[in-house]
Amino acid sequence: MSEQHTTNVAQGQTRQIINQVRSFWQGEVRDITAFYTGYDQETYQKQVAPGRNTAMYLLAHLIATHDGLQPMLGLGSRSYPELAPFQKEAEGQLELSFSFNELLSMWFKINEQLEEKFDRMTTLDWLSRHNSVSEEDFKAEPMRNKLNVLMNRAAHQRYHRGQLVFLIPKAMAL
Amino acid sequence: MSEQHTTNVAQGQTRQIINQVRSFWQGEVRDITAFYTGYDQETYQKQVAPGRNTAMYLLAHLIATHDGLQPMLGLGSRSYPELAPFQKEAEGQLELSFSFNELLSMWFKINEQLEEKFDRMTTLDWLSRHNSVSEEDFKAEPMRNKLNVLMNRAAHQRYHRGQLVFLIPKAMAL
Repeated sequence: MSEQHTTNVAQGQTRQIINQVRSFWQGEVRDITAFYTGYDQETYQKQVAPGRNTAMYLLAHLIATHDGLQPMLGLGSRSYPELAPFQKEAEGQLELSFSFNELLSMWFKINEQLEEKFDRMTTLDWLSRHNSVSEEDFKAEPMRNKLNVLMNRAAHQRYHRGQLVFLIPKAMAL
Repeated sequence: MSEQHTTNVAQGQTRQIINQVRSFWQGEVRDITAFYTGYDQETYQKQVAPGRNTAMYLLAHLIATHDGLQPMLGLGSRSYPELAPFQKEAEGQLELSFSFNELLSMWFKINEQLEEKFDRMTTLDWLSRHNSVSEEDFKAEPMRNKLNVLMNRAAHQRYHRGQLVFLIPKAMAL
């Protein structure tokens, strides 16, 4: 087996794993989208558990979190800065001035924008430092790269999906 | 830059990303462990939301799911076959015959066993077919490999953590 062949194999593996992480992210986006397009609007006004966030609030939170990937991954500034506070604050502290349909449209748009920008990122881009870690810290912890952020934000969707399922009939999900 | 150097870089990147996925998994295990070691036993008897699973049931479910990685990833048979039904069945259909402390001990042991086995896996092992996909399907969808299973089971823990947080004071988690 030639050296060139070995290089191609290794580079192909790296590229494949990055695509797997992207595919993992896309799957989570699809599942959240399925939730927010599969029920009537009354469902989304409900709290996922007593005294906890409503599904509608969680949608604003998810949009704000995804939008925050733009500055964090060096992909530009937020598209919806007015939603930025929803990334951190719990419900009750913030008033939501958008309708469900407006939020849903932002959800589609932000994920579409991210896909376009992700498509242009190289292996080295994914393995580079994200903007919430200093150059110094990154030298010591090279895993704090952009790919890691994507993996974690994919899991972040799964976390909230674990809560959103409480609004749908019990038989359908654990 | 020599060909050999390029090969080493590419192989190093692949290894690093696999380590990142393992680190992602380990972080989720740590967070679940922190939940099950941080509160009093009464907390774990409670349902995470009205009519939903108790934390104790979810611990059995998480152990069974992790244990199921052994046959699925070709790492041996289940260590706790008596818990296997908890991987699929919802509460109410199954009776739990273990105490909380017994379950907690199984949780520690299964995760320790998995780490030891994961340590021995190579890049090619992680990129190989898992046992719930046929050879034919795997040819068409090479992403259905062992690494993908690990990533998804990491996210699976996050899903249930999104539910378990409902048992702890609201200020502590979104």
